[in-house]
Amino acid sequence: MSGQGFKIVDIEQDLIKANEKIAKKIQKLFHEKGIKTFDIVGAIGAGKTMILETLVERLKGKYRLALVTADVTTEIDADRIRRHGVKCIQINTGRECALTASLLQNVLDQLPLDDIDILFVENVGNLICPADFVVGCDKRIVVVSITEGGHVVIKHPLLFKMSDVAVINKIDLRDVMDVDPEKMVKDALDINPYIKVVLTSAKTGEGIDELVDVLEL
Amino acid sequence: MSGQGFKIVDIEQDLIKANEKIAKKIQKLFHEKGIKTFDIVGAIGAGKTMILETLVERLKGKYRLALVTADVTTEIDADRIRRHGVKCIQINTGRECALTASLLQNVLDQLPLDDIDILFVENVGNLICPADFVVGCDKRIVVVSITEGGHVVIKHPLLFKMSDVAVINKIDLRDVMDVDPEKMVKDALDINPYIKVVLTSAKTGEGIDELVDVLEL
Repeated sequence: MSGQGFKIVDIEQDLIKANEKIAKKIQKLFHEKGIKTFDIVGAIGAGKTMILETLVERLKGKYRLALVTADVTTEIDADRIRRHGVKCIQINTGRECALTASLLQNVLDQLPLDDIDILFVENVGNLICPADFVVGCDKRIVVVSITEGGHVVIKHPLLFKMSDVAVINKIDLRDVMDVDPEKMVKDALDINPYIKVVLTSAKTGEGIDELVDVLEL
Repeated sequence: MSGQGFKIVDIEQDLIKANEKIAKKIQKLFHEKGIKTFDIVGAIGAGKTMILETLVERLKGKYRLALVTADVTTEIDADRIRRHGVKCIQINTGRECALTASLLQNVLDQLPLDDIDILFVENVGNLICPADFVVGCDKRIVVVSITEGGHVVIKHPLLFKMSDVAVINKIDLRDVMDVDPEKMVKDALDINPYIKVVLTSAKTGEGIDELVDVLEL
């Protein structure tokens, strides 16, 4: 608390640290079980779930897959994934704008951890909050789409700094949007020179092979 | 704090209440000064700033306007607004995913409150966090776009419950998106029967007259 106002940041620092501890425990467990794990973050409507549906179709014959999808409310995302015949657990975060390690930990007993090669965790659709809350996955994939406007990358540097892979989706709409996808690629690399950027269209399948390569799957 | 995990919600309740107190003070001040105030919330890239640019162009001959734009980082939005010749103050919220009343209060001395008829406050691009933090404006406008996918409304009931007006933007792209805008209108009205819904394209100007009418300006 400070003066007339207050600082959420100060209070949240403790939560962030507590969350990191749980995330480390989860990551250790995943490593012991030999599970490759990916945390998918991104804005609402960027196409995270559709990208995952496409990846599931490509990978389900080769690996034993499982997914966790997080959203403030509804079971819509999990239902979409389950139609592809893979295990998917929905977490509803209520008013919370990011998945926390604690929330993920609560559902781990519902997953057959001894029979999973790859776990994808779809975070809440949000480009700000998940930056503060890791969940114990090995790699983080940030998904944005060109329909969000050309500034979406530079407006969210933190999430691009913290991610290993950036997916710029809905590239099939490049002719109808006043956006330069190459500028978005440049912005991402300016923020994080180590990030691997892939242009995709989950709708047409463009770029999905390259994404699979980048994820080393 | 609870068991192995923790609940951010419990801690944030105090912040939400502290914020409401400041918001009430701000609202009282705006009323004393006779300023009409609008808080514009919505996802990143939904077109909030472009809608405001369009409104500014329509209204600046009739009213004395001022704007506050909030973003985690960058001055991009304020610069866009200033090009239209109106006063605009940028607030950078850092890691915070919503504008707070306290942050707004901090910049009020930079505004000529005796010479403003209408104040638009553009909140951080986020469909979750601003639901908890009012900033003292009379009306809240939630902006989404059809490019965010057909589920964007039902996935964020809280923000639609708390808003007076819903703008469904980028309607010019209806032919290239697999989305039914009328279903989004229905979803918004199912969540909040009192909300006024306007379909717009900030790009082509479609629906902006109707939006001005709905805002009673």
